[in-house]
Amino acid sequence: MANEEKQFVTEITPQGEDFSRWYIDVIKKADLMDYSPVRGCIVFKPDGYEIWEHIQAELDRRFKETGHRNAYFPLFIPESFLQKEKEHVEGFNPELPWVTEAAGEKLEERLAIRPTSETMFGHMYEKWIQSYRDLPVLINQWANVVRWEKRTLPFLRTSEFLWQEGHTAHENEQEAREETMRMLEIYRDFVENYLAIPVIVGQKTPSEKFAGAVDTYSIEAMMKDGRAVQAGTSHYLGTNFATAFDIQYLNRDNVREFVHTTSWGVSTRLIGSLIMVHGDDRGLALPPKVAPKQVMIIPIGPPKTRDDVVGRADELFAELKKAGVRVGIDDRSDVRPGWKFNEYEMRGVPVRLEIGPRDMENGVCVLVSRISGEKKVVSQDNLVEEVKAMLDQVHQEMFDRAKAFREEHFYTVDTLDEMKASIEEKRGFTLAGWCGSEACERHVKEETGATSRNIPFKPEVTKTTCLVCGEQAQHTVVFARAY
Amino acid sequence: MANEEKQFVTEITPQGEDFSRWYIDVIKKADLMDYSPVRGCIVFKPDGYEIWEHIQAELDRRFKETGHRNAYFPLFIPESFLQKEKEHVEGFNPELPWVTEAAGEKLEERLAIRPTSETMFGHMYEKWIQSYRDLPVLINQWANVVRWEKRTLPFLRTSEFLWQEGHTAHENEQEAREETMRMLEIYRDFVENYLAIPVIVGQKTPSEKFAGAVDTYSIEAMMKDGRAVQAGTSHYLGTNFATAFDIQYLNRDNVREFVHTTSWGVSTRLIGSLIMVHGDDRGLALPPKVAPKQVMIIPIGPPKTRDDVVGRADELFAELKKAGVRVGIDDRSDVRPGWKFNEYEMRGVPVRLEIGPRDMENGVCVLVSRISGEKKVVSQDNLVEEVKAMLDQVHQEMFDRAKAFREEHFYTVDTLDEMKASIEEKRGFTLAGWCGSEACERHVKEETGATSRNIPFKPEVTKTTCLVCGEQAQHTVVFARAY
Ligand SMILES: [Zn+2]
Ligand SMILES: [Zn+2]
Repeated sequence: MANEEKQFVTEITPQGEDFSRWYIDVIKKADLMDYSPVRGCIVFKPDGYEIWEHIQAELDRRFKETGHRNAYFPLFIPESFLQKEKEHVEGFNPELPWVTEAAGEKLEERLAIRPTSETMFGHMYEKWIQSYRDLPVLINQWANVVRWEKRTLPFLRTSEFLWQEGHTAHENEQEAREETMRMLEIYRDFVENYLAIPVIVGQKTPSEKFAGAVDTYSIEAMMKDGRAVQAGTSHYLGTNFATAFDIQYLNRDNVREFVHTTSWGVSTRLIGSLIMVHGDDRGLALPPKVAPKQVMIIPIGPPKTRDDVVGRADELFAELKKAGVRVGIDDRSDVRPGWKFNEYEMRGVPVRLEIGPRDMENGVCVLVSRISGEKKVVSQDNLVEEVKAMLDQVHQEMFDRAKAFREEHFYTVDTLDEMKASIEEKRGFTLAGWCGSEACERHVKEETGATSRNIPFKPEVTKTTCLVCGEQAQHTVVFARAY
Repeated sequence: MANEEKQFVTEITPQGEDFSRWYIDVIKKADLMDYSPVRGCIVFKPDGYEIWEHIQAELDRRFKETGHRNAYFPLFIPESFLQKEKEHVEGFNPELPWVTEAAGEKLEERLAIRPTSETMFGHMYEKWIQSYRDLPVLINQWANVVRWEKRTLPFLRTSEFLWQEGHTAHENEQEAREETMRMLEIYRDFVENYLAIPVIVGQKTPSEKFAGAVDTYSIEAMMKDGRAVQAGTSHYLGTNFATAFDIQYLNRDNVREFVHTTSWGVSTRLIGSLIMVHGDDRGLALPPKVAPKQVMIIPIGPPKTRDDVVGRADELFAELKKAGVRVGIDDRSDVRPGWKFNEYEMRGVPVRLEIGPRDMENGVCVLVSRISGEKKVVSQDNLVEEVKAMLDQVHQEMFDRAKAFREEHFYTVDTLDEMKASIEEKRGFTLAGWCGSEACERHVKEETGATSRNIPFKPEVTKTTCLVCGEQAQHTVVFARAY
């Protein structure tokens, strides 16, 4: 390994040595973010932000396809609004920043910066909804939200973050529950088939549900250190917010009733998740569908053939770009190919395209998969198809690897001791029976640091006894330490 | 006029009676916005927000085409940052809201909610820029910003609004000035050719420039009440922020130098502008390129043919939708066509498509222009092309009408009395000579309520004497009352 190549690798802490340091090393070195001078708030640099743009574009398309429209509601939430739903204010109060002065004057009522917007939507829906003819209301918002976190981690837990929050209102429980499940399924499908992250779909236990929800559902992903990230949530809010904000409508029988509402969201923590799921000791590995650059072209060969090779590389670049592939080219003459290979592997570019003088003679070029290292010689005549096929293959490989990793680190346990051993020694998720008591759930957390992630809709096995008290299990639950 | 049709119209105050009331009536009735419980902050309802989405999509495309990338910087600006650029803090201090507490504790340093982000970008650029090889830095951000305004007006002046802010750093003045002009031209072209609003391009006088800029350039549009809206600005910031934040780089001669920076932005006030430029006593008139619905199909005819006509209308709907036209269909049987015609005219839908039983027999349908009322019978075989042509025609008509209106309300004056008469009696813009003294500019404002809008690059005439003091004119300036 040449010195310069070694240097590259040694700047990233190996995952096995210190996963948290690996994570910070990678996101800094790959230029995804920077720390800002405001505690807990990061700057999303262009390569980090572009991942979010691709996430946004695809989710937005799916939301609209299912009848939702975007709107924009105010950043500021009057304190009195938050007070209206008791569980909600208790859940969010500890994390709120407050605006107390504006334009040189003290405000009569403090304004919270929104941590989420159920209350503001609730207030407006009360004005907008009169009759069943106004329902359903299906609105989404892309926005920044703030939760003043004590411990922060770039992308995964920041004081300000970006997200989307859907807020819908329906005539009855059934429709609202259908919506809750529809959006959960959109999240699952998107995260699995777009970000290549396998997830466990299920319901949160009461202690882990959203503050103010009747039921919360989540998709949970396993990071490479065995910890969980809640990648998306969808809430059936019942009539809790409708009651708090008096959102009533005249039903088909001309009787006033409360609407049933839902909310659902994913955030920029998806960026952190995909890094922790796919990255390795060489750096980032970005899922092709959201990678800012999907293919990086690197011309190789001796100086005397350079102009010819670069000329052909430029043509291939133009061809791929025209076909809608996000392609880059690095034709710097003062940087060696080996250095470039490492650089774009570190940056997670899914496919590298190498072309040299002999390839030119043969009308071929070489595609290299970031995730498997597989090299494939392909005809230049067929380039667009070959590249698209390789990108699909890389996506599939990433998903399969992540799924295999999760299966290797997924343990079914019967007792707390078994759980402790699994989580501490082997890292990962554990599946266990749970009697349904909050005391047993708390006990798990105190003893192992693991929290209940969710009650999977499709558990691998169904457990019959609670891992803590040994009583009859009500649910089979996934427990894990979580970000 | 049937009663129900009359009712529609009488719910909107005529422009000639009270333009401000007309504006509020229209945006409320067309469902573009609602007032929020937070003073000066509006809710962008789906039809209002979608206009912004179309504005965003096209501008974003143009920014990227010219080499810019998006990023996201924090909402909060530490007080000390704002203090660093003297003019900047003086300009924005009176409008800032302050976060003083978070998570139950008083903050050590107050945090402003960003009114604009030159200071935060400046702080980060100081860290990111080392050498000429790092330049230019071309970053844009789509974000919410807050300026605690005393008098607010939906879309045009709200305490919280949405915008984009570009912030670029360059090696030297020439490049930075080229960037400033490039973005100004993108704004002009976009506003004229996408929003159908003719604008006057020019430079702001020193008293009207951005707080902290060396030079500010703007595009200015005339509303239908003769007032001006500044529709976009582009600033050459010189080394002001570079000096304040110590953004230095090693130049090609290995010498440390300050970068030259620019910033440029447009905001959701564009929505207010296009309403005030194009709307009329029947309601909104939306430019086709940003209208949420470009075409509304209304089946007509007696009940006995209804099913057939609606069936064919559905096919036309599908055909237009497939061709990328934003099309709607209103096939409600309990609402009369006349009512629907008024409804979608009020909502500003650029083209109405009528189809009845006789049209079906003849294989035609009728396209009606919102702006001119022109009806055109077109063949169904050729529908997509005909509709696209009609949308282009509506765009052109809107632009031409707005331009003609502006020309009719554009007065060249020699004296303050003439200006007073023009502005008070005839409303509109006035072009006058100005000696360059702030005193004369202030005098105009005190006497007429008009401010200098800009010094047009291409004035209709060049004036040689100052309209106030009669001394030699340095500039020919557009003065107008402004939103
Ligand atoms: Zn138990
Ligand atoms: Zn003068």
